[in-house]
Amino acid sequence: MTRPRPGGVPPRLFHPRSVAIVGASADPLKLSHRPLEYLRHGGYEGEIFVVNARASEVAGLRSYARIADLPAVPDVAFLVVPGAQALQAATECARLGVGSAVVASTGFAEAGDEGAQRQLALTALTEEWGIRFIGPNTNGLYATHQRLSLGYNAAHAQRLAEGPVSIISHSGALFSTLSARMNAGAVGLAKFVAVGNEADLDMLDFFAYLVDDPQTQVILLVLEALRDGERFLEIAARARAAGKPVAVLKLGTTQAGAASTNAHSSRLAGSARAYRALLDAAGVAQVSSVEALVAFSRLALTHPSGWQPRGVGLGVLTASGGGGTLIADAVVGHGLEVAALDRATANALTAIKGSPGLTNPLDVTSIGGTLRSGETAKLLAADASVDAVVAFLHTLPSAQGRAAFARAIAEARRHSAKPHLVIAPGALPAEQVALLAAEDVPVFSDSASAIEALAATLKTARPPLAHTSASAKAPQARDAEDVDGRAAALQVEPGQPRVLNEVAAMKLFAGAGIACVARGFVADPAEARAFAARCGGPIVLKGVVDGVEHKSDAGLVHLHLDTPEKVDHAFAQLQRALADMPVPGRICAQQMMRGEVELIVGVVHEAPLGRFLLLGMGGRYAEAIDDVQLLRMPASRAAMHAFVCSGTVGRVLNAARWPRPRTPEDIVDVLDRLQTLATALGPALQAMEINPLLIGDAAPVALDALMVLKPEGDHP
Amino acid sequence: MTRPRPGGVPPRLFHPRSVAIVGASADPLKLSHRPLEYLRHGGYEGEIFVVNARASEVAGLRSYARIADLPAVPDVAFLVVPGAQALQAATECARLGVGSAVVASTGFAEAGDEGAQRQLALTALTEEWGIRFIGPNTNGLYATHQRLSLGYNAAHAQRLAEGPVSIISHSGALFSTLSARMNAGAVGLAKFVAVGNEADLDMLDFFAYLVDDPQTQVILLVLEALRDGERFLEIAARARAAGKPVAVLKLGTTQAGAASTNAHSSRLAGSARAYRALLDAAGVAQVSSVEALVAFSRLALTHPSGWQPRGVGLGVLTASGGGGTLIADAVVGHGLEVAALDRATANALTAIKGSPGLTNPLDVTSIGGTLRSGETAKLLAADASVDAVVAFLHTLPSAQGRAAFARAIAEARRHSAKPHLVIAPGALPAEQVALLAAEDVPVFSDSASAIEALAATLKTARPPLAHTSASAKAPQARDAEDVDGRAAALQVEPGQPRVLNEVAAMKLFAGAGIACVARGFVADPAEARAFAARCGGPIVLKGVVDGVEHKSDAGLVHLHLDTPEKVDHAFAQLQRALADMPVPGRICAQQMMRGEVELIVGVVHEAPLGRFLLLGMGGRYAEAIDDVQLLRMPASRAAMHAFVCSGTVGRVLNAARWPRPRTPEDIVDVLDRLQTLATALGPALQAMEINPLLIGDAAPVALDALMVLKPEGDHP
Repeated sequence: MTRPRPGGVPPRLFHPRSVAIVGASADPLKLSHRPLEYLRHGGYEGEIFVVNARASEVAGLRSYARIADLPAVPDVAFLVVPGAQALQAATECARLGVGSAVVASTGFAEAGDEGAQRQLALTALTEEWGIRFIGPNTNGLYATHQRLSLGYNAAHAQRLAEGPVSIISHSGALFSTLSARMNAGAVGLAKFVAVGNEADLDMLDFFAYLVDDPQTQVILLVLEALRDGERFLEIAARARAAGKPVAVLKLGTTQAGAASTNAHSSRLAGSARAYRALLDAAGVAQVSSVEALVAFSRLALTHPSGWQPRGVGLGVLTASGGGGTLIADAVVGHGLEVAALDRATANALTAIKGSPGLTNPLDVTSIGGTLRSGETAKLLAADASVDAVVAFLHTLPSAQGRAAFARAIAEARRHSAKPHLVIAPGALPAEQVALLAAEDVPVFSDSASAIEALAATLKTARPPLAHTSASAKAPQARDAEDVDGRAAALQVEPGQPRVLNEVAAMKLFAGAGIACVARGFVADPAEARAFAARCGGPIVLKGVVDGVEHKSDAGLVHLHLDTPEKVDHAFAQLQRALADMPVPGRICAQQMMRGEVELIVGVVHEAPLGRFLLLGMGGRYAEAIDDVQLLRMPASRAAMHAFVCSGTVGRVLNAARWPRPRTPEDIVDVLDRLQTLATALGPALQAMEINPLLIGDAAPVALDALMVLKPEGDHP
Repeated sequence: MTRPRPGGVPPRLFHPRSVAIVGASADPLKLSHRPLEYLRHGGYEGEIFVVNARASEVAGLRSYARIADLPAVPDVAFLVVPGAQALQAATECARLGVGSAVVASTGFAEAGDEGAQRQLALTALTEEWGIRFIGPNTNGLYATHQRLSLGYNAAHAQRLAEGPVSIISHSGALFSTLSARMNAGAVGLAKFVAVGNEADLDMLDFFAYLVDDPQTQVILLVLEALRDGERFLEIAARARAAGKPVAVLKLGTTQAGAASTNAHSSRLAGSARAYRALLDAAGVAQVSSVEALVAFSRLALTHPSGWQPRGVGLGVLTASGGGGTLIADAVVGHGLEVAALDRATANALTAIKGSPGLTNPLDVTSIGGTLRSGETAKLLAADASVDAVVAFLHTLPSAQGRAAFARAIAEARRHSAKPHLVIAPGALPAEQVALLAAEDVPVFSDSASAIEALAATLKTARPPLAHTSASAKAPQARDAEDVDGRAAALQVEPGQPRVLNEVAAMKLFAGAGIACVARGFVADPAEARAFAARCGGPIVLKGVVDGVEHKSDAGLVHLHLDTPEKVDHAFAQLQRALADMPVPGRICAQQMMRGEVELIVGVVHEAPLGRFLLLGMGGRYAEAIDDVQLLRMPASRAAMHAFVCSGTVGRVLNAARWPRPRTPEDIVDVLDRLQTLATALGPALQAMEINPLLIGDAAPVALDALMVLKPEGDHP
């Protein structure tokens, strides 16, 4: 992570006084002809140069044989020559002092080892000469306000409407889909950049640039992989401070998708869970489709900067019982709630109707009908439990009723800072759409993407829980010394195993203040019996062999040893089993403990996104149950608490019959200590986990643990 | 469940020679004027009568004061008079011999007790006079081929395009949304019926009618609640035999949605899980939105009747890496798979490209580009692992490429029976949509609903696993006698408790051949110690008191008793605890067993849908983990096996480290025995469950159980 290079996106990239198209074909049917055509069609007002050694003129412009022949140094060069020539052309640009080059050419890191070498050479040019590169393997960029259409995507052929939404994308081809969808939703574009292989300027450079770009109000990222989680968090915090909503369409959130991403780009998609946790920590919305991404931008443009919802409660307004039910059913899966209306609202509704019992979703036909829906809509918007209003609209039988209902929604919105949106799968007449749009009420014909976008909006409109207090907090002095000492010892031991066995790992966890089950190595049956006597209950004997992680499968675990005879017998069996192992092992005795529920907790390093705390239902089949969640470090105790109370673990702890009210705080304590330990261990740590962590009537106890260190030399 | 009444939907309902509009207002601004206007506008060619005592003429037609005054008996009457008058009008119709009356009037079961009484009176008219009712509280019906627009929804005002898709709906208001969405997707309607409160003819009557309707090829149900699960299964089986795909949009699948449904109709929405299981048993598709319902019908019309996929593998075709990744990510959540291509396909692709490594999703730009995409598209469609092809299309830079790619997909479809569909969130030019439509390739701009519809199609195109073999299979003779004997005893015992305690329940389960933990009542500490000695390991002592379900919470459970002293001590404590209970209790000794994983299994009766086997992760916090699935009874062993291998339980059993390969079959054995027992117990049984059922290294063992019987008199 040597990024960012100083300087960021050069100011002239989006405001070039001159652009050179290098490799522009004179043949109008060729792809390499198009950028020139599109640039002119787009209305670019600066100077255009053409470099093409095989033509004297291209589309009426004089063509120069070499970049060095140009009459002036262009601010931006757009390279459409093949890979090997592109490197040559880039070198010429660098030497000439060209500010930025957009390398549309392919044949770089996406194309095997030779291409990867070529890409390294490109990066070296930046370091030597200061030229900045976009790409290679990019479709180009677009800036509507600057009338700069510089690329060869179908969208580059169009004069796109100016607007406040900017997009940075790892996929260039999606530009035409995005721009067409934005156009259908009447959202204008500010800037689009396809960052390609990111040999130099990367998504984060452009993200930082757009935060400061006065023409950009909403930032959309189409993301395959990030290079630096920490920097992403910093920029996202700046975007929030600037009042610019940010949403991410992450490509490759499933194994199938990630495989597909790897197949066509040079990036690894990384763990979807780690991205989810990083975006949560950044307070950045994540959506799952182009439709939802554009819907997010439409919604973002309708609410005032700085607006914050109280929660995730929706008011649902409808003129059809069925429509209200559809919305209620659909929002729940996105973590939204149909708000329980305040008593004052309920009373007011009762007064209108003349009888009680009206609930949300609110069917206006049962309260005076659409002609009298104005008052109802305002009541809903004003309710303190309502954070946003969703209206399901269908074409009503009466033209008057139709107009009245749309007007009622628009009117309610005018007096409310809360987002209002209309879902109309059967579409609405244009005049109603216009009437609603005039009051910042967008109309969506796809309920799924609209609701997903609304959920993402409500989830991210409030700042994320602070993630820094814990890192600032000094751990208990004695603990800190202990941990630091052990950590230091860990890092200097040469030739230490990469996977720490459970005894070594548990010592570290115990040193960090986490309650661990009583255990210890026993040299002979007498020691084992003495251990059992001290425990006063059944014990477990295990064979501990470096490199053997699944001890049960290897016959190295004997449970429920509750008599001296059983202890002796198990000890003898283990000795025989250990004799068959390739490396020597030792026998460890452990108190046999039982608990209601087993968790898995830990810390995992997901380079380059950062470190994450991990929590899920544990035990031997944790992988099958597969509900593990991540929380990015450093996390405050408040963030940890919210984390513990979410997901399956949260549901278990919230169950009415859960015996120990303190358990969530107990788990936060364990996570906090894991975070402190991980911080002390530093970059040598790859992952550590306690599985199971027993919870129930008593305080949590670690029963088994694992710690994985990075291979030496693999950390700075 | 006295339905269905004989005769079903009268043939003349959709083919009336004459229609009387009862209560048609002369005022064109009134809602009650509209049905007449719409009927005429729709092109109805039969005779139209008007009944309105307060006008001599309505819209140019003579108005009669009373139904009895009409010059002829109409085949169908449409009643738009208010509730109380509607009953009077319905009575007149009945006496006159009118065949069917569509009761659009409200004020019936949806409107409190008085309305419910009124609705009963309506039903009584059918029984007395034979007239058939649609509604009350219905928006009406529509039959395009018969030019019969009989209702007051906005869609009734339009001449809808004729087509092969019919809809039966519990929501009348959704008709305009549905018809507009169908129109946008170029799907024509055959018949629409809003069944209203179903005082007489209900959704299933119309479902049965449409299975035999020659103009209907696809049947869509917008469903709040069914009255008879068994009858639904029978009609669905007939629809399958007739080659008519069926999809259901179930309203009220969440608590919020169900609450909303109850608020506006007289139906209870019932358990979403039971509906899911019933629809699975019927092989009927379930979707979650109007968009997906219409998308399903569009897809259904493109594949030949009788087509059956091999599985759920998709070929994904794209001209953009990002688009392919989006599709791959999106399909996984719907239980679809990106197909692993056959070796022959891979070889052929390698031959085209000249190098290996191409995978699905297939980016045609990396294999000769769109101009050469024809061959690629055909290879994908021909691959045996591919069950359907999804193409992600965006507007390509070159007009040639654009046309070539669309042609390639259309061409591939022409030679394949497999569904092909195009997803284009940015929409496509009309000529490309037409080119694709001509070869049965629908284009969707909303990926979420298109993928949901495709998943529903692939899941239901094959017949559901037989659900009847088990019921036909005779249980082991001795078991059957045993079970029947006990069942008989259960049913005759007067004053028996509604909730059977665990000892009584476990006896029944053991009698049905399910392995249960060793247990028995013990009268004194000596008996308890003797029990422990026989077990040869630790035991549990519990206080069993009728009416106390949560024994642990009441201090009535002592675990891990592994010495005679502990047994004595626990026995004494239990005796004291029982002395404090309001009713006498007994002490039960049980072997203490441990296992890897605890399940919950059982049988639940969800009237009127039927009985269902139940399976999920068990233990004390089963409710919090909340992954219980249902399977409708009777279920064959094959259906049970598929059931056991799905969901969280399936993932646990499929984990590489699961120790006992026979476990799925073991669980099927338990389910099979539960089914036999439930059948023997008959209608007295409300629910029974074993929780936990211990699984792991050994065969499953029931550790605790519960059985709930219906209150006496509550079953036939």
